[in-house]
Formats: sequence, C-alpha cells, structure tokens
Amino acid sequence: MAKHLNKATTLVEALPYIQKFNNKVIVIKYGGSAMIDEKLKLSVIKDISLMKLVGIKPVVVHGGGNKISEMLLKIGKEPKFIQGLRVTDDETVEIAEMVLSGSVNKGIVQLFEQQGMKAVGISGKDGKSIIAKKKLVDGEDIGWVGQIDTINPELIRALIDDDFIPVIAPIACDEDNNTYNINADYVAGAIASELKAEKLIYMTDVEGVMKDVNDRESLISKIKLNEIQNYIESKVIVGGMIPKIECCAESIEKGVSGVHILDGRVEHSLILEVFTNSGIGTMLMP
Amino acid sequence: MAKHLNKATTLVEALPYIQKFNNKVIVIKYGGSAMIDEKLKLSVIKDISLMKLVGIKPVVVHGGGNKISEMLLKIGKEPKFIQGLRVTDDETVEIAEMVLSGSVNKGIVQLFEQQGMKAVGISGKDGKSIIAKKKLVDGEDIGWVGQIDTINPELIRALIDDDFIPVIAPIACDEDNNTYNINADYVAGAIASELKAEKLIYMTDVEGVMKDVNDRESLISKIKLNEIQNYIESKVIVGGMIPKIECCAESIEKGVSGVHILDGRVEHSLILEVFTNSGIGTMLMP
Amino acid sequence: MAKHLNKATTLVEALPYIQKFNNKVIVIKYGGSAMIDEKLKLSVIKDISLMKLVGIKPVVVHGGGNKISEMLLKIGKEPKFIQGLRVTDDETVEIAEMVLSGSVNKGIVQLFEQQGMKAVGISGKDGKSIIAKKKLVDGEDIGWVGQIDTINPELIRALIDDDFIPVIAPIACDEDNNTYNINADYVAGAIASELKAEKLIYMTDVEGVMKDVNDRESLISKIKLNEIQNYIESKVIVGGMIPKIECCAESIEKGVSGVHILDGRVEHSLILEVFTNSGIGTMLMP
Amino acid sequence: MAKHLNKATTLVEALPYIQKFNNKVIVIKYGGSAMIDEKLKLSVIKDISLMKLVGIKPVVVHGGGNKISEMLLKIGKEPKFIQGLRVTDDETVEIAEMVLSGSVNKGIVQLFEQQGMKAVGISGKDGKSIIAKKKLVDGEDIGWVGQIDTINPELIRALIDDDFIPVIAPIACDEDNNTYNINADYVAGAIASELKAEKLIYMTDVEGVMKDVNDRESLISKIKLNEIQNYIESKVIVGGMIPKIECCAESIEKGVSGVHILDGRVEHSLILEVFTNSGIGTMLMP
Amino acid sequence: MAKHLNKATTLVEALPYIQKFNNKVIVIKYGGSAMIDEKLKLSVIKDISLMKLVGIKPVVVHGGGNKISEMLLKIGKEPKFIQGLRVTDDETVEIAEMVLSGSVNKGIVQLFEQQGMKAVGISGKDGKSIIAKKKLVDGEDIGWVGQIDTINPELIRALIDDDFIPVIAPIACDEDNNTYNINADYVAGAIASELKAEKLIYMTDVEGVMKDVNDRESLISKIKLNEIQNYIESKVIVGGMIPKIECCAESIEKGVSGVHILDGRVEHSLILEVFTNSGIGTMLMP
Amino acid sequence: MAKHLNKATTLVEALPYIQKFNNKVIVIKYGGSAMIDEKLKLSVIKDISLMKLVGIKPVVVHGGGNKISEMLLKIGKEPKFIQGLRVTDDETVEIAEMVLSGSVNKGIVQLFEQQGMKAVGISGKDGKSIIAKKKLVDGEDIGWVGQIDTINPELIRALIDDDFIPVIAPIACDEDNNTYNINADYVAGAIASELKAEKLIYMTDVEGVMKDVNDRESLISKIKLNEIQNYIESKVIVGGMIPKIECCAESIEKGVSGVHILDGRVEHSLILEVFTNSGIGTMLMP
Repeated sequence: MAKHLNKATTLVEALPYIQKFNNKVIVIKYGGSAMIDEKLKLSVIKDISLMKLVGIKPVVVHGGGNKISEMLLKIGKEPKFIQGLRVTDDETVEIAEMVLSGSVNKGIVQLFEQQGMKAVGISGKDGKSIIAKKKLVDGEDIGWVGQIDTINPELIRALIDDDFIPVIAPIACDEDNNTYNINADYVAGAIASELKAEKLIYMTDVEGVMKDVNDRESLISKIKLNEIQNYIESKVIVGGMIPKIECCAESIEKGVSGVHILDGRVEHSLILEVFTNSGIGTMLMP
Repeated sequence: MAKHLNKATTLVEALPYIQKFNNKVIVIKYGGSAMIDEKLKLSVIKDISLMKLVGIKPVVVHGGGNKISEMLLKIGKEPKFIQGLRVTDDETVEIAEMVLSGSVNKGIVQLFEQQGMKAVGISGKDGKSIIAKKKLVDGEDIGWVGQIDTINPELIRALIDDDFIPVIAPIACDEDNNTYNINADYVAGAIASELKAEKLIYMTDVEGVMKDVNDRESLISKIKLNEIQNYIESKVIVGGMIPKIECCAESIEKGVSGVHILDGRVEHSLILEVFTNSGIGTMLMP
Repeated sequence: MAKHLNKATTLVEALPYIQKFNNKVIVIKYGGSAMIDEKLKLSVIKDISLMKLVGIKPVVVHGGGNKISEMLLKIGKEPKFIQGLRVTDDETVEIAEMVLSGSVNKGIVQLFEQQGMKAVGISGKDGKSIIAKKKLVDGEDIGWVGQIDTINPELIRALIDDDFIPVIAPIACDEDNNTYNINADYVAGAIASELKAEKLIYMTDVEGVMKDVNDRESLISKIKLNEIQNYIESKVIVGGMIPKIECCAESIEKGVSGVHILDGRVEHSLILEVFTNSGIGTMLMP
Repeated sequence: MAKHLNKATTLVEALPYIQKFNNKVIVIKYGGSAMIDEKLKLSVIKDISLMKLVGIKPVVVHGGGNKISEMLLKIGKEPKFIQGLRVTDDETVEIAEMVLSGSVNKGIVQLFEQQGMKAVGISGKDGKSIIAKKKLVDGEDIGWVGQIDTINPELIRALIDDDFIPVIAPIACDEDNNTYNINADYVAGAIASELKAEKLIYMTDVEGVMKDVNDRESLISKIKLNEIQNYIESKVIVGGMIPKIECCAESIEKGVSGVHILDGRVEHSLILEVFTNSGIGTMLMP
Repeated sequence: MAKHLNKATTLVEALPYIQKFNNKVIVIKYGGSAMIDEKLKLSVIKDISLMKLVGIKPVVVHGGGNKISEMLLKIGKEPKFIQGLRVTDDETVEIAEMVLSGSVNKGIVQLFEQQGMKAVGISGKDGKSIIAKKKLVDGEDIGWVGQIDTINPELIRALIDDDFIPVIAPIACDEDNNTYNINADYVAGAIASELKAEKLIYMTDVEGVMKDVNDRESLISKIKLNEIQNYIESKVIVGGMIPKIECCAESIEKGVSGVHILDGRVEHSLILEVFTNSGIGTMLMP
Repeated sequence: MAKHLNKATTLVEALPYIQKFNNKVIVIKYGGSAMIDEKLKLSVIKDISLMKLVGIKPVVVHGGGNKISEMLLKIGKEPKFIQGLRVTDDETVEIAEMVLSGSVNKGIVQLFEQQGMKAVGISGKDGKSIIAKKKLVDGEDIGWVGQIDTINPELIRALIDDDFIPVIAPIACDEDNNTYNINADYVAGAIASELKAEKLIYMTDVEGVMKDVNDRESLISKIKLNEIQNYIESKVIVGGMIPKIECCAESIEKGVSGVHILDGRVEHSLILEVFTNSGIGTMLMP
C-alpha cells in the first residue's frame, strides 16, 4: 500500500509542472547516445509521448551524423571533416539526405507510433520549412554544409494543430534546387526561436556545464545570459561547448523562455527535467 | 538518482492510462470521509485536478447530508429519517438547498481554484439541469425527496467545453417551482449515463464489495453485470449496497463503460484507480 | 379593434429601442421591494426575459441582506451593523454565503426558468469571477466584508455566449481561501465596467434623485457626470445616495454608456425604461 | 402612469410569442392594398422589421401585377388576361421583369433600410433560386407564365445567415435562358415549403375565409387540412379562393406548421397575428 | 499531336498568372460594345467565369445607358444630356432603375448561370451598398444624377465569401429614400478601392491611351501615376479620357494595385490581359 | 493577334473541365520515364501545379525502383527479382526506404516548391498512413515486400485541407515495427479508393491498351468494367498489363469515378487528359 501511495504522490507532484507547460511548445534536439542505445531510445520516445499526452506540444529535431558516416563507408567513401564540419560533396549530401530524411527520421516516427502516438517525419524541404545558404569555413567552401537563412513554420504549425508530433530532419533547400546538411543543434535553436517555444532541450552526452569536468558535483544548474562571457573567459565553458552555448543564448534572446543542456545518457532525463523538481543538467535563462 | 529514476518510471507508467482516458468524461460522486477529513479532501481535489490537466473531463457530483443535519440542529430542528431517507418538509428542503448549493458546493469550487483550476458550482436548478418528481416511500409522501425525471445536459456540456470543472449539488426543480433534495448517488449515475461517461466513480467509506466484510483479502475486484444477481442471492451484496449496485448496473446498461466503488478513505485512491495498475475497490463492467 | 391596434402600435413603437440595444449587455442590480413583493418579482423576471428574447444580453446581480438577517435570527444570532455595514464574523459569512449563493440566487434562477428562459446562478467564487480583499471601516476590521480587487469576466462571458442569463450572488473569494460578502451595488458596477455594458440599472426603493424628496414632480431625469459635485454641495444628493451615485459615476468613467436609478416599486419599470420613451427614474450619463 | 403600465403590459404579453418564434423562418407573401396605400406599406415594413429584431427570420415574397399593367399601358400595350393569367409575350415578360425585379423589389428593400434594417432584393434568377417551366392554360401556351420546377434555397439561406431580410421578386429562369413571370402566391408557398418555414402568411384584401361574405362575424379562424374538401363542397370556399387554399394546403403538407390568410388592409395585422392572441384572419393547420 | 501540345503549353504558361491572382479581388467595369455584341458578350462572361474558377474573386459593375434611352423613347420621352450627363427627372430615374437593376443586371446574372456559375445581381440599394448624394453640373441641379458618398461593402463581401459572383447595377440610395443613377465608372472605382482590389479593369471601346489616335502602334502600355499630368499637358490624354484617367488614378492612390483600360471590342481581351503576357490596352500603376 | 486569340480560346475551352474537377481529388501515380527525363519531369510537375491552382486536389504517389537498384549496386549488392518482385532482405528494405522516402520523395517535393507550390513528402509510416503485411509469392516469403492492409487517410486529408500537395513514398509499416516496400501502383489505387478520388491516373511508359501493340491507331480509349474479361480472353490485355488493369478495376469498384492509363512519355499528357477533349491513353470506367 505504501508503494501505491508513493506512486500516487509522484503523479500528484507532477501537477504544477503539467499545469505550467500546458499547451506550450517544447523543442527537443534528439541526438547522441540517446539515439543509439535501444533502452535510452525507448525511454526518450516514452518521455516525449507523455509530454504530448499531458498537453505539451513537443517538436523533435534529430541528428544522425554517425549513420551518414556508416553509409558513406558502405559505398566505399571515407568521411572527411574540417574543423568538425563534414566535407559534403554532391554524393555526400545525397547520402546524408537519404540517411537522415529517409532512414533515421522515419525510424523515430515509427517508434512514436509503436507507443500509440501520431507522428509525422519531415525534412526542411517539406513545406519549404528550412531555407539555407552555404556555410563557409574560414572563407573556404567545403560543400553542401548549410547555415539557416529562413525558417518557414507554416507546415510545422499545421502538424502541431492537427495533433501530430513533428519529427524534423536537419536537411534544407535553397531557391536554386540545392540540398544542404545543417547541424541539428542550429536547426533546433532556429525552430524554437521561430515558434517562440517555452523550452528548448538539447539531449547531449555530457552532464551539463561543469566547473570541473572531473567533478560531477561541480555541475552548474543555472546560467544567466549575462554570465556566459565570464564562464568563457574563466575557461569553464570551453571547446565545442562554446558554440553550443552561443546557440542557446541566441534562442533565449529571441524569446525562448529556457534552454536546457541535458544528459541524454540518463534514462528518463526528459521527464525528470520537465515534470519534477529533480531538474538535472544545465539551464540557460534570460 | 535511483529515487529520481523511480519517479520518472512511475510517471511513464501512467502513459497508457492517460492515453486511454484522453478527452473522456469521468463522473465522480464525491462524498463520505473524503469530504470531511482535511487531508483526504485535498488529496481528492489534487487527484481530480491532475485528471483534468492530462486531458480527462471530470464532472463532480457531491453529497453533504451531514452538513444539512448540522444546520438543522443549529436552527433547533431534529433531522428525521424514514428507511434511510430524510423526511424533508418545506423548511428542511430550504435548509438543504442552502447548505448544498450555497455552502458545500462553493467550498469545493474554491478548493479547486486554490489548485489553479477553473471550476463552476451549479445545482440541478441551473440550466434546468435536473428535473425531478416526488419520490414516495412505500407509497407515502415524506416531503421534498426527489427522484430524477430528466437530465438536461446542455449547461454541463457547455461548462466542460469552456474548460471548467462542473461541480454539481444534488438539488433539482420541477415545472411547478418546487425544490427537491435528491440522493447524490442517483444524480451521479444519471449524469454519467446522459453524458455517456467513460467511467463513473463512487467515493465511499467501504473498501468495495467483499465476500467477507471482515477479510480485506476477500475484496472482489470486478463484477460483471450478469453476476450481480448471484452475489445478491448468495448474500455477498447486502443491505445498503444493493441499491448502490443496482444504480451502478443501470449506468452500465445506459452506456457508461465502467463503474467503480472506491474507498475514499485511502489517500489518492482516485489517481491509483485511474492512472495505475494498482486499481483498488470494486469495478462493475458490462 | 381599436384596442388591438393600440397593442400593435405599442409593440411597433418599441422597435427603435430594440434596435438600439440589440446584442448589448445590460447589467441589472436587482434588490429592494422588487425582490420581496411577489407581483413585482414576477414583473422583473418577465421584463428581463423580454429583454433577453429581443436580443439584449442581461446580467443580473442580486442582493438579499434581509434574508441573511432572517437566517441569523433563526440560529439565534443578532445581526450587527457598523456604519450600515454588517459585522461579519466567520459564522455570519458562512450563513451569508448559504443564503445568497444557495437560496436567493437559485430562487431567481428558478423564476427565470418558469418563464422558459435559460439561467445559471453563480457566485463570485465560480470561475474565480470576483476576487476581493478586506474592507476596513475607519481602519477597523469588521470581519469578512469585502471590497472588489479584480473581476475575472471569463465565466460570465462564457455563459452569455452560451445563451444563458447569468445570475450573480455578491460573494467573493481571495487567494487564501477566504469568503467575503460584498455590497451588491459595487458588484453590479464593477461587472458592468468590466463587460463595458451599455447600461447599468439599479432597481431601488426610491423614485430617483429628487430636488425635493416630498415632491414627486421634482425628480431629476438626467444628471451629467460634471453636475454631480454641485448636486452634492447643494444637498440635493445626500446621505446613502452619495456613495451610490459615486459608484454610478465610476462605472460611467469606465465606459458604461448610461447608469439608471429606477424605482423598483413600479411594476414593469425595467421595460418602461428600456423599451419606451416613458423613461422613469434618474439617469447618469457622461 | 396607467398608460405607461398598459404599454409595458402589452410588451410583456408578447413574450411567449417572441419565445415561440425565436429563430424560426416566417415567409410573408406581400401584396394587395398593403403594397399600395402608403400608411399600410409603412405598417407592414415596420411589422416585419420588428419580427426580424426579436429574432424571427422573415422572408418577403412580393407581387406587383398592377405596376406591370401600368407600365405596359405607358408603352402603349394593352394588358391581356386569360382565366386570370396574364398573356405574357416577349415584350411583356421583359417589362414584367423590369418592373418587379427593378422597381417594386428595390422599393421594398429601400423601405426596410429606411427603418435601419439590412435587406437584399433578389429575383428567382439570382443564385438560380427559382427554376420554372411553362404553364399552360387548358393546354394552351399563353407565353412566359411559369410554374415552379425547382427551388434552390442556397442564396436565400446564405442571406438569412448573413442577417439580411431577403426580398424576392416572382421572376424565374430555366436552363434555356428564358424568363418567366410566376404567381407570387405560388412562389411564397414553394419557398416556405423548401425552407420548412414555421409560418407562411398571405397578406390579402379579404378578411379571411368567411361562411357568409357579408357577415364579418362569420369568419372562420381555423381550418384543418381535412376540412377543406367539405368547405369547398359546401360552397364556403369558392372562386379564386380555391386555388389559394389549395396552395396553402400543399405547404402544410410539405412541413410548414401554419398558413395564415390575413387582411392586409388592417394596419399592423402582421404584428397582431404573430405577437398577440388577437389573431385575425384564417389559419390553415395540419 | 503538335496542336495538342500547343494547347497544353498555353495552359501551362497561364500557371504563374493564376498563381499571382489566386484569391485576389478583380473588379471589372463591364460596358460598351462588349455588352451589346452577342459574341463579345459570351466571350466576356466566359472570361470572367474562368477567372472565378481558377480562384480569382471577380466583381462585375455594369453600365447600360443605351438601354435606358431605348426605354425612355418607348414611353415617348426624349433623353436629354448636359455635358455628357443624363438629365434625370423622377420618371427618368424610375426608368433607369428598372432598366439597370431589373433588366440589364438580371440578364448578366442569367448569362453567368448558363455557364454553370453562381451569380447574384444587386444594386447599390441592396444592403445599402452605395450611398449617394446629388451631383451638380456647374452648380446646377440636373436631377437624380448621383455622386458616391459611401460604399458599404458588407453585402458584396458576404456574396464573395459565399462563393457568388456579385453583379452590381450603378443605382444608389440616400437616407431620404431617393434613388440615384451613377456613372458606372465611378462605381467600379469606388468599389475596387473599398475592397482593396488587386486589379480594376475598364472594358471600353478604345484600344487604350494612344500617343497618336490614328496609329495603333502608338499605344502606351503603362502609365505611372506621376506621368499623368505630363500626358494631359502634352495633349496625349484629352477629352473624355481625362476624367476616366483621373478616376483610375484615385483608385491606385487608394490601394488598388493596377488599373487597366482594355479594348472590350477584342474577343477574350480579359483573359489575354489577366492570364497571358500578351497584355493589351493601357495599365495605370503606382 | 490571331495567335493571342488562339491562346485565349484554349484557356476558355478548359473552362468546363476546370468546373468539373473543382475541389475533386485526383490521385496521380508518378513513375516511369516521366520520372527520369528532365524535360518530362518538369512537364509533370507543372501540370500537377496547374491542377492544384485551378482548384483540383492532387495527391502524388511515386515509384522509384530503378534508383533502389542503383543504390544497391553502389553498396555492392546485386538486385534480385522473383516474378517481377524484388527480393527484399533487411538490408534491401533499409536501402529502399532511404532511397524512396529520403531521396526520390524529397526530390519531387523540391521540384514542386521550385514552381511556387507547397508540397509535403511523406511515406506510409507518417501518421501510420499505410499499414501493410507480408506478400508471399506462390506461398514463398521473399522478404519485406508488402501488401496493403489498411489505409489511414487522416494525415493525407489534413495535408490536403492545409493546402499542401501530398507526395507519398510507397513504404509502409506494421504493428511490429517492420518496414515494407510496396508496389506504388497498389498504393495509388488504395489511396484513391480510400479518398473516393474523382480520378486515378497512372503515368506509364505505354500508350495505353492497344488492340495491336504495333498499331498506334488501335488504342482503345475507353474500357468498361464488364468488358475487361473479354479483352483478357481475347489476348488484347496481356502480361504485365493484366494485374495493372485488375488494380484499376478494383479502384473503380470502390468508388473512383475513372482510372486512366496515360503515356507519361508524352509531354503535358496530364494536362491534355484533364483539361482538354484531347484525352489520350485508355480510360477505365464503371
């Protein structure tokens, strides 16, 4: 009986969180281990399903870089990167689109439908949702790597209104019939900004921003916009985390209420973040 | 961390139940100890609030007989009962209406609003929601005790559609400007039938139907319509439980999917019944 | 035949008034003799029913102080007043709520329904329609006498849109679960302001504002906002009429087009005021 | 004051009638003296305006035969009739259309608008509302005299829904681009049937059906469908009244609740019929 | 086969034009030869029907002066003009209204319906769409010649929304029950302005504005607002074209995107103008 | 000028066809040469764009078998077929999905968007639109080749209602998380049936059904359902055309008004079929 009561108490404790996020859009950047490990995958899908069922409007943006590399290798092509960005020739972007829009995207849709949810997988080409232009690296052209020019939210909004969960592959087009592969972090940020989302959640493979990466206790729970510069200068935020944090900051500036960097390796981290006071990871706020 | 995970798991386990009852009407007959004990009161209000927030459409019908007796005593009038029914003269029905529609009803509304919910308290007079006629006891007139003639669901539906929780006092009217006090069990049953509710839940002060009232383990979890007669003949269902069960049976016949007799003395029994597999009490089903 | 023609002419003469008030909200403060005398009661209910039927949106706010005193006496408690305000301890406010929300309110609803109209009785607690705070008398706490903090018109508007006549008891709540009894004149004024009503009509037991109270001919038909001060200084408006007039003035300032002080002792005074050029009583205008 | 009270009483007495006809369609065949005498004209327009304002949906079908003859004479053409039907050659039907659709129709519209109402004048050609075919007289072709083939109510319903009073000229078309003049009595009957009108009212120049045409007291107030044959056989219904009554009977059979033959020479006869118990004229009922 | 391909190519070439004008209002002033010659008439009706079917919202305003004169002559009345404006006494305006609203207007409606389209013929009296006042000629009253005071677009918008083609006769009313005949050019201009039409097209009996009226090659295809004055000063725009051009200019200033002066004597000139790059006539633009 | 007139005439001649198909759903199976040749590709996209713009609701189902084989070869896997069906092991279905849903599908979407249209590419997995089960060949399992179990049209209808052109890849799912490749002909037929499409058009690489395949003149324009058996028996319909015709016949039986077998190698064959009387290919009808 005590166990029963415990369960009930947990559900009731979720009440104020459910109330708070009712009818709000939450954009989730889905990637990393949580996209590979079968158990974590199911945990993420169930968490987002629960969010949808209690009245939240989740939008999922996914990555899938490792799958692209796998496929490239399969056709005998060695993946190449410059400054962490994939060199993307014509053949590579074709493979990237096939893998992301055709395989990863539809796989996520199917998982949602296994849970009884209604999901629709689209890429930035559908409804011209993402218009991109070429991104140069130090002024150099490394192929069809895109940066976002415009988000056209009409289709995404229509799918939300028709009660579907939109699942978005980070592929974009331009007016000249070109195809671009874009970093999913940027796509998630731009869509959250355009939709004025309540929250933008990045599922990563780190625990959050930590003062000392070797000390789990040194996790910084909340960072205000105006503190970022200090953290960079004091070398707390370093390396690959810098552009990620800058991308978070931009979303906050454009109206997203809060951006979370979550540890996707923790089961049900989404639920814990959204529905309990056991918030984990690091939150950026205005 | 294990505790956190436990919490998350509990929430995720509620997923199929939330899915199942999404957008469904659940009528709750609220009465007994759960209306008196302050802790249980808050537990019920929170449970129903959670139901509302996750997409269920709860309708609350309340009793309040003991409060009527208290008030009668206050004005120096001794409550009188015949066969368990209150002898209800003109003065008594006036007091009953004041207490139920004016005090108990608005008190429940206020508790919901404390939880941030939108509730509206009505009686069967509002929108002519409940039309009654006199109920005789063995052919004898014992005053303004009513039996339901017609339920007019227009106002209740309008309040549900406008996103309020309707809270209903068991007071009815007739075409001749009379006022009736009606047993809240019957009101809940008739409203659940009219609304084709998914569930009708009676909060009582017993644990359910038990084969042996002294043996908690003998609780019968499910009773099918066609088993009732047997249980009555074999004296499992006896006394005051007989009319209650007959009232449940009628609702099932009129299209309510399931009727539950819950122990309102157990904290969060509503949540446990609706959102977990720890269903407690007795369920009647077709 | 001449009689017939007369009837028809009267109906046709109402045409421009019906046109003028079509779809407009008119708030009626219902109180005084018109709530006690059976004939007057029926006359008011029929008048408001006619208003509703010809396309006006009436909202009724009622008082009922004398009924509270009656009930208090019944339970052996002497009503007490300070400066015309009822001293309202815990027991008194409980009785006040029961009488107003449970008895008077539902009685009015029932009368409308006898006329074939759809009405709904609510108090300021329903839908958190009226939030109040304590009103002090010369800095002194006399109990649960409230002054209006906020009107939340959502429920009232929903009822109007769903084609019901809202009937409102002057009981309010606050965020701390307290109950307040408020002067119905203020409630009517605040609701009329919030709804930007076309008219606010006070049914009183006087003929209106008179230059000489003993001379019926001295009735002042129209008072402009900027004349009020003069009338007070010249002792035309005196005593209890002063706060009433100030309350009217405030509604005008907040956008109500006209406020009427009507003699509720005259049968069908509402109809005469609204649908004929035989306007009676005193009208305040910008 | 007594006069005032009288007025108010008359208005209040209209309440049940307003209630009864709320949102109902009433089709009025407007013709005879009521279309010629200036005072009667205004009386009819005001009566219909009142009907509209209190929630009735009036549809006006007008005649205008005398105006056609006037115009024919003006261009030097002698009107000719066979069995009461106008011999209608090409030139005649052109004049008939111009007079009915262009002059009479728009004149009525303009009178409504003078009263502040929104009206729209159409003929059976607009929205293909009336499709006709040739009507033969004893097998003989007398020109463009039509009988109704189909009523297409789409435009009329759209105008009603958009809150206009439709004013309809009895001109029809066919699939071959021909124009027909149709008896307005038939048009009114067919439209009332198609719209399932609550009432169909014929404004005529007689007092109704009378047992003895010279004895005003012999007026028959109500005739049931199954009594018609008797009245014809017993020569109470004779001559031109026979086809009119048969046309009324057909509308009743097709679902119109009541058909009235009113004396249009009596001022405000419409109002008296619809809003008082002083019903005048003869009513046909199922 | 080549012929077939040609056809298909033509249809496909219309694509960008259809796209451009989708859901846009285009007001067509229909008059001149195109209203007289049977072949041209059918060509115009078909052109407008095509426009409607591909998603454009056409509004037709027609003239009909010559028909008025014919009818006047028929009743033995000599038409009289001062400065090109018809002297319009009481009898004349009555004839004008009959001819325009009753004959010409309904004739156009019927032609549309022959093509399977839904059309409704109204005059400025219907729904009080056009309110006018007297137009004086050099300060002199020449009768019921009107100038536009107000356009009330409610009825026209309702007809467009209900999917009808509105066909409008240039007859207007005032508040004093008078009837006015108005120049259809002005009516078309005012309605296009009020509806913020995409295009306003005048079907005329000239080829457009020409530098040399005897040289077809000298047609000016486009005139910008700021060039008009020059063209007038240099005598390119002369005589009756001056007021027409000024009327066009006013519409442009009020928000119409383009005004066209088309040669209505050319078959399918409307289609050519709207759906091909073979634009003919003169276009005025901002 | 004659050329201009020709153009206009062609456009006007399309009028009855546009009228006929207004608001109707037309399902197009897009495949064969029309998907490979760049010029034909553009011609199809423009034709469907025109259809959409003139009020038709096109739904596109595409194939892409040759692209799958290309990709398989790229990863060093030899495509294998049994009785014309691709042997589809796990790796093959993964490649098939990537190619169809990720590459071909999005390529078509992009072409529509180049034309200014709004398109959305989905597969049968999105919104669980196509549920399939395994198709056996003579009782033998050849892998993930599916046959349709259920079409769930909710998402397709939502996209149509939101004004997008749905572009559908023939990939389906089942309840056990499997992926199927389905013949696009069957998918088009089943979707047309479910949507009760007006037309179903197969773009093929033949001219239609011919009595003598070597004689273009022997093309059969129309085949009625009850003639099919004869044509099969008389060897007019042979080989691969038999299942295609049977699939057409089934759609007709389920309510599609007409099914067309079009020669996709002819430029603008879609336009010619739908908008002109130059219908080409073979039509099956009830």
